[in-house]
Amino acid sequence: MMHFNFHMPTRLIFGQGTLRRLAGEPLPGTRALVVVSAGGSMKKLGYLEQVRSLLAQNGCESEVYDRIQPNPVKEHVMEGAALARSARCDFIVGLGGGSSIDSAKSIALMAANPGDYWDYMGGTGGGKTPPEPALPVIAIPTTAGTGTEADPWTVITNTATREKIGWGNDSTFPRFSIIDPMLMLSVPPSVTAYTGMDAFFHATEAYLATCNQPSSDLLAQQAIHLISTFLPQCVHDGSNPETRTMLAWASTAAGICESLSSCISHHSLEHALSAFYPDIPHGAGLVMLSEAYFSHLARFVPERMTHLGYFMGVDVDSLPEERQPEAFVHALAKLKADCGLAELKMSDFGVKRSDLPALARNARESMGGLFHVTPVELDEAAVLDIFEKAYR
Amino acid sequence: MMHFNFHMPTRLIFGQGTLRRLAGEPLPGTRALVVVSAGGSMKKLGYLEQVRSLLAQNGCESEVYDRIQPNPVKEHVMEGAALARSARCDFIVGLGGGSSIDSAKSIALMAANPGDYWDYMGGTGGGKTPPEPALPVIAIPTTAGTGTEADPWTVITNTATREKIGWGNDSTFPRFSIIDPMLMLSVPPSVTAYTGMDAFFHATEAYLATCNQPSSDLLAQQAIHLISTFLPQCVHDGSNPETRTMLAWASTAAGICESLSSCISHHSLEHALSAFYPDIPHGAGLVMLSEAYFSHLARFVPERMTHLGYFMGVDVDSLPEERQPEAFVHALAKLKADCGLAELKMSDFGVKRSDLPALARNARESMGGLFHVTPVELDEAAVLDIFEKAYR
Repeated sequence: MMHFNFHMPTRLIFGQGTLRRLAGEPLPGTRALVVVSAGGSMKKLGYLEQVRSLLAQNGCESEVYDRIQPNPVKEHVMEGAALARSARCDFIVGLGGGSSIDSAKSIALMAANPGDYWDYMGGTGGGKTPPEPALPVIAIPTTAGTGTEADPWTVITNTATREKIGWGNDSTFPRFSIIDPMLMLSVPPSVTAYTGMDAFFHATEAYLATCNQPSSDLLAQQAIHLISTFLPQCVHDGSNPETRTMLAWASTAAGICESLSSCISHHSLEHALSAFYPDIPHGAGLVMLSEAYFSHLARFVPERMTHLGYFMGVDVDSLPEERQPEAFVHALAKLKADCGLAELKMSDFGVKRSDLPALARNARESMGGLFHVTPVELDEAAVLDIFEKAYR
Repeated sequence: MMHFNFHMPTRLIFGQGTLRRLAGEPLPGTRALVVVSAGGSMKKLGYLEQVRSLLAQNGCESEVYDRIQPNPVKEHVMEGAALARSARCDFIVGLGGGSSIDSAKSIALMAANPGDYWDYMGGTGGGKTPPEPALPVIAIPTTAGTGTEADPWTVITNTATREKIGWGNDSTFPRFSIIDPMLMLSVPPSVTAYTGMDAFFHATEAYLATCNQPSSDLLAQQAIHLISTFLPQCVHDGSNPETRTMLAWASTAAGICESLSSCISHHSLEHALSAFYPDIPHGAGLVMLSEAYFSHLARFVPERMTHLGYFMGVDVDSLPEERQPEAFVHALAKLKADCGLAELKMSDFGVKRSDLPALARNARESMGGLFHVTPVELDEAAVLDIFEKAYR
């Protein structure tokens, strides 16, 4: 029986050179807070000034909040929200990678709501429903990976409690997103690889999630095919607008999958990892866990796992039937290698084997919801087993 | 170069038995106008009472406007809007086929705006921009065809000027739509066939339109495949919930295609036909024009026309290359026959050969916009030629 909700209200403006559309699109106000990372790339590349100038052409003043770090934290959400209030901003622009856009969403929420951000989170948070919708958000991604431009989700870390938790509601769907692949040409190879693999897993997991629906299946299939084809090319030569465009669409399509279907517990495991070790890029964490995780699933959901092999272009039919569900895992290993990610090791990021039981517990406690849409029951022992198999 | 806008903000609630969700979804007000056709089927089948009772459970009073006819007219839009105003309705519910839901959208527009509906239309209309958004609309389709539950479009006829014109803006996307295939089990065979073929052409045309995009291509492909497979089954036995569900999704998917891509001039030709002859069901008009229209296109857009053959399951590769683009037209003829539509003739609906020049002129004047996204130039002589080839 086919039952689903389809909802993705964000207007996506996609294509090379579309950034300039920011000067003409109707804006949700006349004062914006532009949120960028602390790294400084948005300034160095001139994108921040370009965005502020386009907003100004559109009759909109802007302030800047530029302290966001990779694996963004609650303190910066609260600080950015205080700035948005004091500067009387009508809306928030997230410019950059997933950290900046997710922070923009969370800042938009806290600029309009009382209390602390964690009052509204799960895990050890208060779990309260925010009384007010978030301020409107505009997303301008400069990496192809997060998909946050096409979903309501924002992932913020509470360093004090070691929790990295995803959250969203209808008000945190961006009002519109501009996906201009020309902004992605200068992304360095390692970031291209990490973010591209994040998008790859969004699509993969949305296809496996029990809440999949026809539209997410179609988009996931296309995203997996495009990323398998174009990610290695973009890692090795990031300057080609055409391959960057394919990757940008794949990433946004995988983001739509996040709105229509869901991630599964692979993401819960990674959130535990990067909550404990904030220096692990999200995509790297997923990559390090992935072979152990999907090998485990292959036994339990053979049909959809076999499809994933087809989507990656594997000649699945030439394999004996019992080996078909694992074809995807082998193709994944090859994709990782082609993207220069074969040698990633948890131990290189300082993860100790003795941490693994705590990580397994955290994965289920902080992001337990995703286990409910995972197509196989995974108790704490099974999660620990995956962590141990993935550990190197 | 890939450039597109993706925007379909309607929340779609899809699945057998989902009508009951109307009792729990947040509603955009406490007084609704429910718009149904004059035919009486919504009353006979008990759907009107069910909808009013579910609204009442949700704290919402309702009025009913029940004068809508197939190929709905401007007079009923104005009458319904006057009722919505006098009853102080907050929102409009369209229950039934495309006529009722389109009328609900147009009534919602005129309940919130001054003047005459035609002030806002193209063709001989005033072409004005409505100063106010339409009242919120909820769509509950009981046929699988129109797709209006997933797009902003409404098609209304001005009988005085013999114009049948499509219109829509962001405010006429339904707030939410409930697509419950169980409401479609009692649709009679001929209506199943006509509406199903309408959906089929939405998908076909969205795939051929120059404004196609990756998501509309994917959904069009799936809709064409599903309709080719399940429409004949539903025409011959409408009582199977599973095949009705497949057809309902195909029709809604084709509606999403109307939001992301567009119909092409095939629809302009049909609008001329049913503006002159309001007794021609829209789907029947499309069917009668289709072979002549798509045969003409096959010469000019061979690649995408060939794809359409694949989507219908034709063994295209076994054909010589020069015949591949026309494979779709032959498969279409077979689909029509399988649905009992092979014998449809314009002359049986009273169309005279001498009307054809006026129809060709009307097609370009009333719905000229769709010619701009048609992948081949079609001047008035070419349109007349298609009408003449289609005439029997």
